[in-house]
Amino acid sequence: MIHSDNQILLESVNEEVWRRRREEAYKRFLEDIEIGYVDADIKDLIFTVFTKKNIYTTSSCSGRISIVDSVYPWQRDEAYVIFKKHQPLLLSELLDVVNQKTLHRLWLIVSGPIIHFNALNLSSANKLLNIVRAAGFKHSGILSIGSGGIVVEVVSGIWVPFLLKDGDTIVVNDFKRIVDIANEMLKEGKQKLEKLFKFLKNVDI
Amino acid sequence: MIHSDNQILLESVNEEVWRRRREEAYKRFLEDIEIGYVDADIKDLIFTVFTKKNIYTTSSCSGRISIVDSVYPWQRDEAYVIFKKHQPLLLSELLDVVNQKTLHRLWLIVSGPIIHFNALNLSSANKLLNIVRAAGFKHSGILSIGSGGIVVEVVSGIWVPFLLKDGDTIVVNDFKRIVDIANEMLKEGKQKLEKLFKFLKNVDI
Repeated sequence: MIHSDNQILLESVNEEVWRRRREEAYKRFLEDIEIGYVDADIKDLIFTVFTKKNIYTTSSCSGRISIVDSVYPWQRDEAYVIFKKHQPLLLSELLDVVNQKTLHRLWLIVSGPIIHFNALNLSSANKLLNIVRAAGFKHSGILSIGSGGIVVEVVSGIWVPFLLKDGDTIVVNDFKRIVDIANEMLKEGKQKLEKLFKFLKNVDI
Repeated sequence: MIHSDNQILLESVNEEVWRRRREEAYKRFLEDIEIGYVDADIKDLIFTVFTKKNIYTTSSCSGRISIVDSVYPWQRDEAYVIFKKHQPLLLSELLDVVNQKTLHRLWLIVSGPIIHFNALNLSSANKLLNIVRAAGFKHSGILSIGSGGIVVEVVSGIWVPFLLKDGDTIVVNDFKRIVDIANEMLKEGKQKLEKLFKFLKNVDI
């Protein structure tokens, strides 16, 4: 990387490597559909992205509800994921987990959609960021710039943990209400994804 | 912006504009200290950043606890911020707010540190991202690249809402416990900030 008087010169994205990785990602996506790994709510959006010239997706989630045993809800490595679902949660499913022994704290976590894109060049990355922000995904940004491409993380800002138990002490007094609010938030996320799909459909990128 | 065979050419950061804005930001920072606007826990870190050549800060927060009346905790415009504090919360402060009428839902929100940097060039932005990620601020990224500079958002991943009331119905059965956990999380955030300060102190950027 060189910084001249008038221009910033970036290490170039290697287009050949980028095209090959895009093909690999597409093959993996088709395989994942066959196995049943792909989240049904996001399948059409990803198919649409694979018709674009300068971007592809590497990973994605349409939004989900999980139940996690950890001291803090932001932990990954030290957390036990006990339950995970991309569709609305049932009260009975929640109570099944609540009735088990809790090691640290029990958190119900609602996450909105999240998609990682890889763009061939900075102008496509910028264009993508403008589109997703207009669609309401305001927390999106560039994670890295390298020869393999420009990685753009698209996130909705919907991420809400509910503390259910602290050790074995229940801290919530109405589980039905928590389930209803969590499902309402999950739905908000899926609607944001629908809006993003509409914005991406007809754009030349 | 031009995309040639081997290199991506970026619209250049205008160094003169960048230096002038940096001076303005520094003046504003000194004024804010006099008025008492600047968050004491982050003052030294910002002073340190203003000794660096290629980065400066535009806004920052050392972490805080707020109490908000809104349907969803991620809302900004439709939310009423009832209480805000950068230091540990007292139970009596929480109960004062809980005993008032709630319009939508009452959320106690713990936010970790957040800092916006402006970098003069991409190599400094990349260097900064590597440093902050090593210090544990893994959710950081580039928000925009323009002639005014490269905006880097540094965030800790600590952001935890607690639902206290749904309308006028209390959903929590032990306010003292929530206060203790929230204060513990606030402290986690301040410790992360200390670590970031140490990482930034001796780096040439």
